[in-house]
Amino acid sequence: MKRYADLAPTPRTILTPGPVEADPRVLRAMSHTVLGQFDPEFTALMNETMEMLRELFRTGNRWAYPVDGTSRSGLEAVLTGLIEPGDRVLVPIFGRFGHLLTELAQRLGAEVYTIEKPWGEVFEPREVIEAIDACRPDLVAIVHGETSTGRVQPLEAIGKACRERDILIVVDAVATIGGVPVETDAWRLDAVVGGAQKCLSVPSGMAPITYNERAEAKLLRRKRVERGLQPPAAAAEEPPGALAAAGLPGSSGAAARPESAAGPGSAGHAALASAAPKLQPPPSSELGGSVIRSNYLDLSQLQDYWSPARLNHHTEMTSMLYALREGVRLVLEEGLEARFARHRRHESALVAGLEAMGQRLYGDPSCKLAVVACVEIPEGIDGESVRSMLLEQFGIEIASSFGPLKGRIWRIGTMGYSCSKRNVLLLLVALEAVLLRHGARLEAGAAVQAALDIYEEGSV
Amino acid sequence: MKRYADLAPTPRTILTPGPVEADPRVLRAMSHTVLGQFDPEFTALMNETMEMLRELFRTGNRWAYPVDGTSRSGLEAVLTGLIEPGDRVLVPIFGRFGHLLTELAQRLGAEVYTIEKPWGEVFEPREVIEAIDACRPDLVAIVHGETSTGRVQPLEAIGKACRERDILIVVDAVATIGGVPVETDAWRLDAVVGGAQKCLSVPSGMAPITYNERAEAKLLRRKRVERGLQPPAAAAEEPPGALAAAGLPGSSGAAARPESAAGPGSAGHAALASAAPKLQPPPSSELGGSVIRSNYLDLSQLQDYWSPARLNHHTEMTSMLYALREGVRLVLEEGLEARFARHRRHESALVAGLEAMGQRLYGDPSCKLAVVACVEIPEGIDGESVRSMLLEQFGIEIASSFGPLKGRIWRIGTMGYSCSKRNVLLLLVALEAVLLRHGARLEAGAAVQAALDIYEEGSV
Repeated sequence: MKRYADLAPTPRTILTPGPVEADPRVLRAMSHTVLGQFDPEFTALMNETMEMLRELFRTGNRWAYPVDGTSRSGLEAVLTGLIEPGDRVLVPIFGRFGHLLTELAQRLGAEVYTIEKPWGEVFEPREVIEAIDACRPDLVAIVHGETSTGRVQPLEAIGKACRERDILIVVDAVATIGGVPVETDAWRLDAVVGGAQKCLSVPSGMAPITYNERAEAKLLRRKRVERGLQPPAAAAEEPPGALAAAGLPGSSGAAARPESAAGPGSAGHAALASAAPKLQPPPSSELGGSVIRSNYLDLSQLQDYWSPARLNHHTEMTSMLYALREGVRLVLEEGLEARFARHRRHESALVAGLEAMGQRLYGDPSCKLAVVACVEIPEGIDGESVRSMLLEQFGIEIASSFGPLKGRIWRIGTMGYSCSKRNVLLLLVALEAVLLRHGARLEAGAAVQAALDIYEEGSV
Repeated sequence: MKRYADLAPTPRTILTPGPVEADPRVLRAMSHTVLGQFDPEFTALMNETMEMLRELFRTGNRWAYPVDGTSRSGLEAVLTGLIEPGDRVLVPIFGRFGHLLTELAQRLGAEVYTIEKPWGEVFEPREVIEAIDACRPDLVAIVHGETSTGRVQPLEAIGKACRERDILIVVDAVATIGGVPVETDAWRLDAVVGGAQKCLSVPSGMAPITYNERAEAKLLRRKRVERGLQPPAAAAEEPPGALAAAGLPGSSGAAARPESAAGPGSAGHAALASAAPKLQPPPSSELGGSVIRSNYLDLSQLQDYWSPARLNHHTEMTSMLYALREGVRLVLEEGLEARFARHRRHESALVAGLEAMGQRLYGDPSCKLAVVACVEIPEGIDGESVRSMLLEQFGIEIASSFGPLKGRIWRIGTMGYSCSKRNVLLLLVALEAVLLRHGARLEAGAAVQAALDIYEEGSV
């Protein structure tokens, strides 16, 4: 039998826009022993994590919990819950992840209207508001920090305009949560999706989300309790939104029932008594068009699982929850404002260093995302060769980009635990050496001195 | 600011049907530093994990990889890919998780036919085959090991019948993979979904799946390349199943394009050159009914991500992949046959001990699932009080059950790392003590002696 080697990943300095390095405390958290999903000690950790996420999202929302999947599972869960087939959705696009929101909404059967900005820019809020008034959407889905171009979209005025018009607004804050301000309540955002593996420095695997009562109201209108968990007698009369308790400690009587009992003319529970199975045709009552088509990503079920009712759904990801809790705990210990300031400080040093090296930053500087620096690949330099040499010789990873920017820019992330003086200085010396090795003409030594000047000023 | 305490979960002996204890090597694997998702060292680990999963599933299938979510994400991904709205689906139900398969298929718009067995039994293969011939489904979805009742469904004859009739068969092997034989190829199963947190003893968070060319053919018919990744020129002509390469190291030119370029009469790329965003209406070409409605769980995209093309999709869960790889590596080091024998040995000891204690096992013994023992709660004993005392006084967790079995049985899992002599003996002494404390009449001391007899025989 083939033997597989011991796992021994090479330590990396990861300066991409995610996944980034995880804090050693987060990595250690995952090595703790597993608790059962309904162990009171574990459900206490779940509740505590919700409390911590509310602080992170700056919200008083009841619902703030992780979806068990990578960031796009959170985006899809929120959109799946809030978009009904035929809904009008507006997606303002200013980079790759606007296209993803469009894709998700289209697959859900929405009529998707889009507006686009050239990559490297963001929207004036009034441009989005004019589009809203032109197409009157049910929902606006928009990216906050667009890592493909390194831009940040101001959201406050757009959030206010949506609220005034009673339109739901869903925000992709995957790249910004924990790194730059995300003001869920102050900006009147109805649902916000964060990312684990970026500014939170938690390994990819959970998508923290929050949503308010306006969003919940739409979910509850579409809610359907999972068949296997419906109580036997109450099933037909079960009002939408009511909880059926699972067969779990601390909850009360639930019973599984045959599918057939739902449909007219069914045999009811008779099949349970008989040894010869009877073929049951599909229930005559079709699912309404409004029913959420996913079970795994059905927020109306997930919130019951995260509620005191603990209605059984999936098996919560124990170790990822340990990691997320520790990551958010680190954020709150540092303090959100201090953390945002740290990201700005290292951004300033990095940018000063890159400019002193003679590199050109890409995009409109007025909307630069603090946690990503996009650098134009110099004329005559093979961008992929530079990236490979950085990784192979120095163990430093930076990113390329997508679509129209492929081969045109590098993207350097300074996110979470990866956002440190050590990493910024290492990147500057290594990039300088690699560019010189590739024949670039630049003044050796200037970059690090410029970055050190910024750090010594201490003003940022 | 409120301070949150250091994570310090109490060590537990987990004898539920999942999640169970993780091997310390799996927990350690997760504490390794993060690698970037396109770091060659990480993609090598991904490829190696696929190879290991093929051994685990006993298949020559090209596709064997984890879905990034808990077990039901794997079930939903497979069913979402293989069920088109209006497809006829047959679900034979013999416990709670048959109801889940029914639920998933119904939400996908299938016409779902069901047959049911009383809980505690499984189907005679001919009963399922007769139902197949009566309703002529496009797909059969069936549970292999039903943890709610502790039963295992023989699948070989059913798989053969499906293949002869050119019907797809999807199997929920969440509870059985790595604990009892699952023969993907020999039983002619088209798609199989395994679970991480049961017999593999990996924390919940990934769902290993495999599927063959028959299943892949259906996926490819429904495939749609994500808009943001389509190359600009080729998009309209892109044949289904063709790969568009992402802007990633080692792959070739992809470019994002405006949504508008997809529809007739669109402005094409003009918006990119203009500063004033133009509202683009929904593309006139509606999505066909056949398009996979999920992006996150779209296997046609996931397999491109797991292929050499590495077409960008989600950000792979680094630490969970480390854990899954280590968990499957442990299974292959032990050897599948030796591992199955270990599960049978501890089952025998546990059952002998329970019977010597005077406990009654629930269900038809001819189809008992080796990794779960269901015990009838004795008359006059409060089952939940017994479970609580086991957890609080002894740190041992066992499970209750669902639906018609709630309050009637306990479920004791012996899965993966939790399946050990130490755990079986501890459970027997603790359960005996707790039952005595609850006023049960039983012969003290007999259970452990009976289990030790089995272990000393060494014949099992």
